[in-house]
Amino acid sequence: MRAKIAITIKPDVLDPQGKAVLHALHDLGFSAVADVRVGKYFEVELEAGTAEPEAAIAQMCEKLLANPVVESYHFTLDEGAR
Amino acid sequence: MRAKIAITIKPDVLDPQGKAVLHALHDLGFSAVADVRVGKYFEVELEAGTAEPEAAIAQMCEKLLANPVVESYHFTLDEGAR
Repeated sequence: MRAKIAITIKPDVLDPQGKAVLHALHDLGFSAVADVRVGKYFEVELEAGTAEPEAAIAQMCEKLLANPVVESYHFTLDEGAR
Repeated sequence: MRAKIAITIKPDVLDPQGKAVLHALHDLGFSAVADVRVGKYFEVELEAGTAEPEAAIAQMCEKLLANPVVESYHFTLDEGAR
């Protein structure tokens, strides 16, 4: 099964990379863009039959993929994919 | 309205960063992980009432956010968020 994980910087933390992308989009003529936040994205493939996949993915995020001090994570589990 | 954009490396393109994360997860004891792919994630806030938001976001991905040669993009539009 596959987990799709999005890591985002918490709303009250500055995101200079997002600001740079925002300016680049404005320079390209996309004036309707009000804000951009940049994050990370992971697709993690788990062996079929893994016990408690939600808890395992949450632990991976806490221990390695995200920095819980300044980042939050969200994920969806796709049981069918393999 | 807010677009959540995930950029992923195409399946036939090597992802050494994903392999590094895979090994790190194994070292941490997450032996059930079979594969990891690393991508990028953007949240783009559009002004309310933007015309054809899907087309605008697709253009942003093609022109700036993704490299269409080796990456694909997927996005969802969240009409309510603001």
